[in-house]
Amino acid sequence: MLSEFSLIDRFFARRAAAQPSDAQSGALGIGDDCALLAPRPGEMLAISTDMLVEGRHFFADVDPQALGHKALAVNLSDLAAMGARPQAFTLAFSLPKADEAWLAAFSSGLFALAERYDCALIGGDTTGGPLNLCITVFGSVPPQAALRRDAAQAGDDIWISGALGDARAGLGVQRGEWQADASDAATFRRALERPEPRVALGLALRGVAHAALDLSDGLAGDLLHILERSNLRATVDVDAVPRSAALQRLSPEIQQRCTLAGGDDYELCFTAPVAARTAVQNAAREAGVPVTRIGTISALQTAADRPAIGWRDAAGTPLTLTLQGFDHFHAD
Amino acid sequence: MLSEFSLIDRFFARRAAAQPSDAQSGALGIGDDCALLAPRPGEMLAISTDMLVEGRHFFADVDPQALGHKALAVNLSDLAAMGARPQAFTLAFSLPKADEAWLAAFSSGLFALAERYDCALIGGDTTGGPLNLCITVFGSVPPQAALRRDAAQAGDDIWISGALGDARAGLGVQRGEWQADASDAATFRRALERPEPRVALGLALRGVAHAALDLSDGLAGDLLHILERSNLRATVDVDAVPRSAALQRLSPEIQQRCTLAGGDDYELCFTAPVAARTAVQNAAREAGVPVTRIGTISALQTAADRPAIGWRDAAGTPLTLTLQGFDHFHAD
Repeated sequence: MLSEFSLIDRFFARRAAAQPSDAQSGALGIGDDCALLAPRPGEMLAISTDMLVEGRHFFADVDPQALGHKALAVNLSDLAAMGARPQAFTLAFSLPKADEAWLAAFSSGLFALAERYDCALIGGDTTGGPLNLCITVFGSVPPQAALRRDAAQAGDDIWISGALGDARAGLGVQRGEWQADASDAATFRRALERPEPRVALGLALRGVAHAALDLSDGLAGDLLHILERSNLRATVDVDAVPRSAALQRLSPEIQQRCTLAGGDDYELCFTAPVAARTAVQNAAREAGVPVTRIGTISALQTAADRPAIGWRDAAGTPLTLTLQGFDHFHAD
Repeated sequence: MLSEFSLIDRFFARRAAAQPSDAQSGALGIGDDCALLAPRPGEMLAISTDMLVEGRHFFADVDPQALGHKALAVNLSDLAAMGARPQAFTLAFSLPKADEAWLAAFSSGLFALAERYDCALIGGDTTGGPLNLCITVFGSVPPQAALRRDAAQAGDDIWISGALGDARAGLGVQRGEWQADASDAATFRRALERPEPRVALGLALRGVAHAALDLSDGLAGDLLHILERSNLRATVDVDAVPRSAALQRLSPEIQQRCTLAGGDDYELCFTAPVAARTAVQNAAREAGVPVTRIGTISALQTAADRPAIGWRDAAGTPLTLTLQGFDHFHAD
């Protein structure tokens, strides 16, 4: 295979942060033992790392350009969920062989997204081995403005950006679990392969939202993280959870599974006080992303009460949902 | 296997940075979308990422405690080579199965080293898949004091910390390429499995050394990185390259291969002006690590001249060494 250095050089280093130092940021990029990076003055670095493994997070025959996009997108989504502004990333990967066409397509998908968010590649590592991608991403955020999981408050509205479930619907089509016509299948596939990180919305929600996270493992599991960290309960109107027109053409049961436990949506789920409803809508308009109110945060009632989600239909009737164990692509 | 969350919780999160915020640093650790981290005031974060793959960087039957040590040690070594003070790290890994005894030993080796360097685990990712470890490490360094690869100057001495070649000798014993008695084999194995990052030396060399890097791929290849980045040449006295008593009991040819092209040493190679010889020795004493002068940096002589290493023996006679293609464990 290509040597480590020629591989890095050909597809990555040339498009990485300027060498040896970037005049604007003072950062030192690829080619030294470490990259040097600082957050904006008065801010902190928000850092997230994700590992994607073939057969678990993507299929072996995935379009490599889409994979390059998604590998960075899922990390930028974590920055969005903190209200952080993307700044830089590192990329470590192992490859069974140096397939030049594959690397060209992968790097083109990766850098197209990186450049849109002004997010520079500042370091990395490449090695032989089973296909594995590990990206660590860095953003800048004023610590007091960070959208933390533990900041929800009783009485908050619960909001969702975009629509949920399309990515899981696309996985189901690929797996043969259900069918969709060509146009809907393309919609689902795009959601699965090309998630759009909600960076602009995260930034616009600074000072507006209380708690936030991105939906990677499904609404049921992810919202519970906010509740557990904030020690609160939630009531969610299942019928209010936003879904695409394409998803609405699948059966109600599949819609529910995909929207509530589907995973891989990378939409933001956030809480904000009732008094901020107009501000939330303004932030969404500014970011160009629709948002939908799906429920309410409430306090625990007794000492024995545990953080949990109460599911309701549009009429307010409690529902008992069995979402535990519903597998999705991201499950470990 | 254990679910992602119980796995993280059991072996890693409990020993990670305090939740939800560390009073001293204001950092936010595991459990949110991102960790929050800032360098010391006026400093920058030095960032390095390394991926270790089974069968390539370690054997499948490696002692997991030693692997935990080494996975972090090779990253701390990159910080040492920049003169950066360790601060935090993220850990992403894929595992074929959640073997509790393996994880307990791995995490114990990892955290024993992390705690010695006050380096907090602030985030990560775990997934199923072929064994793969990706650590990203963060240190703090004043940008003007960073030991960069492009900062060597003509006339500088070339220095090496510790002794070279023991790790490669250990790999050769494990592979059956050569034999050693039990005591020497244990010395070699320890060098291979338990490299000690030269963090204290890197810090002590701030303002003393010009250029530095850590020796992960062998002296011949790594020193060339300094020369290429600094656009200079080097002359190295092969007989001056420090080696252990154990290595000196192997044949001269094996000694040379192991010391010059062996890899996995994780000693520092640095350059410093002749006027700083006493300061270098004082830094080494302060750090408790021996250092040895092995050669000299010189300017390119003609426009056609390329960065390269001229090898000499102790008498100053030029040697022609064929080191190209000599494999070591780390090669990709």
